[in-house]
Amino acid sequence: MLEALKQQVLEANLELPKHGLVTFTWGNVSGIDRESGLFVIKPSGVPYEELRAEHMVVVDLEGNVMEGDLRPSSDTPTHLVLYRSFPNIGGVVHTHSPWGTSWAQAGRGIPAYGTTHADYFYGEIPVTRAMTREEIEGAYELETGNVIVERFADLDPDQVPGVLVHSHAPFVWGKDAHEAVHNAVVLEEVAKISARMLQINSDTPSMDQTLLDRHFLRKHGVNAYYGQK
Amino acid sequence: MLEALKQQVLEANLELPKHGLVTFTWGNVSGIDRESGLFVIKPSGVPYEELRAEHMVVVDLEGNVMEGDLRPSSDTPTHLVLYRSFPNIGGVVHTHSPWGTSWAQAGRGIPAYGTTHADYFYGEIPVTRAMTREEIEGAYELETGNVIVERFADLDPDQVPGVLVHSHAPFVWGKDAHEAVHNAVVLEEVAKISARMLQINSDTPSMDQTLLDRHFLRKHGVNAYYGQK
Amino acid sequence: MLEALKQQVLEANLELPKHGLVTFTWGNVSGIDRESGLFVIKPSGVPYEELRAEHMVVVDLEGNVMEGDLRPSSDTPTHLVLYRSFPNIGGVVHTHSPWGTSWAQAGRGIPAYGTTHADYFYGEIPVTRAMTREEIEGAYELETGNVIVERFADLDPDQVPGVLVHSHAPFVWGKDAHEAVHNAVVLEEVAKISARMLQINSDTPSMDQTLLDRHFLRKHGVNAYYGQK
Amino acid sequence: MLEALKQQVLEANLELPKHGLVTFTWGNVSGIDRESGLFVIKPSGVPYEELRAEHMVVVDLEGNVMEGDLRPSSDTPTHLVLYRSFPNIGGVVHTHSPWGTSWAQAGRGIPAYGTTHADYFYGEIPVTRAMTREEIEGAYELETGNVIVERFADLDPDQVPGVLVHSHAPFVWGKDAHEAVHNAVVLEEVAKISARMLQINSDTPSMDQTLLDRHFLRKHGVNAYYGQK
Repeated sequence: MLEALKQQVLEANLELPKHGLVTFTWGNVSGIDRESGLFVIKPSGVPYEELRAEHMVVVDLEGNVMEGDLRPSSDTPTHLVLYRSFPNIGGVVHTHSPWGTSWAQAGRGIPAYGTTHADYFYGEIPVTRAMTREEIEGAYELETGNVIVERFADLDPDQVPGVLVHSHAPFVWGKDAHEAVHNAVVLEEVAKISARMLQINSDTPSMDQTLLDRHFLRKHGVNAYYGQK
Repeated sequence: MLEALKQQVLEANLELPKHGLVTFTWGNVSGIDRESGLFVIKPSGVPYEELRAEHMVVVDLEGNVMEGDLRPSSDTPTHLVLYRSFPNIGGVVHTHSPWGTSWAQAGRGIPAYGTTHADYFYGEIPVTRAMTREEIEGAYELETGNVIVERFADLDPDQVPGVLVHSHAPFVWGKDAHEAVHNAVVLEEVAKISARMLQINSDTPSMDQTLLDRHFLRKHGVNAYYGQK
Repeated sequence: MLEALKQQVLEANLELPKHGLVTFTWGNVSGIDRESGLFVIKPSGVPYEELRAEHMVVVDLEGNVMEGDLRPSSDTPTHLVLYRSFPNIGGVVHTHSPWGTSWAQAGRGIPAYGTTHADYFYGEIPVTRAMTREEIEGAYELETGNVIVERFADLDPDQVPGVLVHSHAPFVWGKDAHEAVHNAVVLEEVAKISARMLQINSDTPSMDQTLLDRHFLRKHGVNAYYGQK
Repeated sequence: MLEALKQQVLEANLELPKHGLVTFTWGNVSGIDRESGLFVIKPSGVPYEELRAEHMVVVDLEGNVMEGDLRPSSDTPTHLVLYRSFPNIGGVVHTHSPWGTSWAQAGRGIPAYGTTHADYFYGEIPVTRAMTREEIEGAYELETGNVIVERFADLDPDQVPGVLVHSHAPFVWGKDAHEAVHNAVVLEEVAKISARMLQINSDTPSMDQTLLDRHFLRKHGVNAYYGQK
């Protein structure tokens, strides 16, 4: 069942330690097959070095496990909400990558300060509001997804492929699991560059909007001219 | 004598350089056999690359060397006090891991600022008070253990598995030597994330208590639902 | 065509990931053959691990592709302007190396604070002015070159072999592609040392001019006495 | 001539890149044979990966090259002054290790803030005064040695085995070349921990003198009890 997708999701999970985004088992990647409405996700708490394709868990968009002997990631309900609400995304990644987590803990979004940011995120990487007691004590992981979706009421998840969950850490997405991890690496790099920048000049304003447009559109959309096509 | 424990303690010691927690010989791990009341600890000043199971030193809870040709770590009396005072712990680790040491030198505990912290430490990672001249000039390493125990008068060492010794560095523990090292890695990661967070937003308050409860109890206690059991 | 130069430019490009200056494909190196007026540059968006000498693109100083099946780097027009305006340079490198990029995003040049800087850059590493809307919406990459050249109106590019483009990242050059990468590594190291220095002492003045002279001239010019000749 | 010493000095030089203390050729180690009054030093500007024992240069305490085909390090006169003035030292190392260099550029000594420092340096790691125009324009490297010696008028180089040269970088020493490098690693680690500590608590006072005594004397002198003898 969805063997090719399991392999892709496995490989995307293994990219997390390779890029230095995770300590121990603190991260998970999923990928969805939009046709069947099923997604594949890392099992909970399994070390990356032991992870194999057959460990991947298949889940439907109601959260039912359709295949797999292991429990899916405890963050599965968050992934599920994102797939239901953001119809164009094909992969989701959650990590506690340290620079992004520092911004999330600080309760601050990352303004677009330079072209590295603008090449991938069309504006600020937003932070969610603090969750209420009811949300935390209720279906916590599902509500985590809901506060992300609420934060994107006026944002386009295809142009801003990631978010910082308040007091927690980043969730990032993309057209597939591999691109989601790619964007998670970018978020971490941008979080690092921008945190250090604030120490050099704490009054730096956001970048010029025209420059933001130019860089984002140079890499995305019909007039893109970066790369080989 | 305690050959399996020696092997475990050796392996736990070797995880320190692997996780980047030590420079040269600045660290030591021990593990206890509660039945016999004996613990096994790294010898003093031996480089990690030369360390073998037969170098491990067996010590009783009065500090007598029961087996071993080498001197035990100079921090042995601190380990001993922790084993006597915290009855559920099975392993202790001391390092000068750089981020944790920066907080210890600063004389500051690490407040719980985010879920990475909350997943392992149920509240602030405390700092001990400065030691008195008498304590320092007396049985210094034993007194180091005593000020840690004093700091935990109103804290549960099973829920807060580590401490920052003032002007010095972290001591961390767990149910065995391996878990103690695991918690030492977490402390270092949390110390890093939180130090950087303060640079992004120096006014960040501690995290919401409900969120702290949720994350700690998601991983610990009878209602835990993280991982495969 | 220019096979030796292609090999040199390939090797210089491969030094970027080796020195930790690039994430993914965020960087490019070129080298020029002054006799023919042609330069060789990395293709756009090709991963470093797949890069081979035959992928290198040959371009003339009007920007015409003279040889190569792949599109040249999207930053090709910036390289071109630098080659036209700075007659002694033989190689150009652009990266988003994180410390240099933090200074560029902060809109701050890096003053000469110490001898590491003085050994390579004879004074401040300058930052360009913010670009105008017309420049950004026009021939953006060419205009990027123009603002660099404008910034060097009163500076000698042979004595200050690099610049920070405002809200963007460094461009660095040298007598050939290899030296350009060498200088890019130095810029990143100096950017790191100086950013951290500001945190230790935010009031540090620029270094003494006599000391700057001594160090730069110890390594450059007719009276240099560093190295083996 | 002094073949064993050449081998030792070679190995000590090769430890510099291994411990991350140098970029390119920015560092040099020497070792002295006190009986003959000759010291062995790295040649100037030779990459570490090409360095072999026969490249080492033998110099006397007047600065005359006694053996070797290559030019000695341009910092040779500084090493020479240290050997003449500090009679118990057997090895000297100079690097631009980044954290130590940040403190040196900042013109700040590193106060003893914690036990990591106290285990090796018996008090502040001092910074020299700024050099005068005459010193810089004169026999610059020799005068660098002289300002170090001047700074140690009331300090014991055997208890404080290193210094930060103002606007420049660290010089560190020890009983032989290997110990000098060991101390250079410690200086860099202490510089890192203390710089980060200032960001956590910028008002941190120096550590308690009794604790400093205890830690330094635990590892040094007749009553030392760390290690295996």
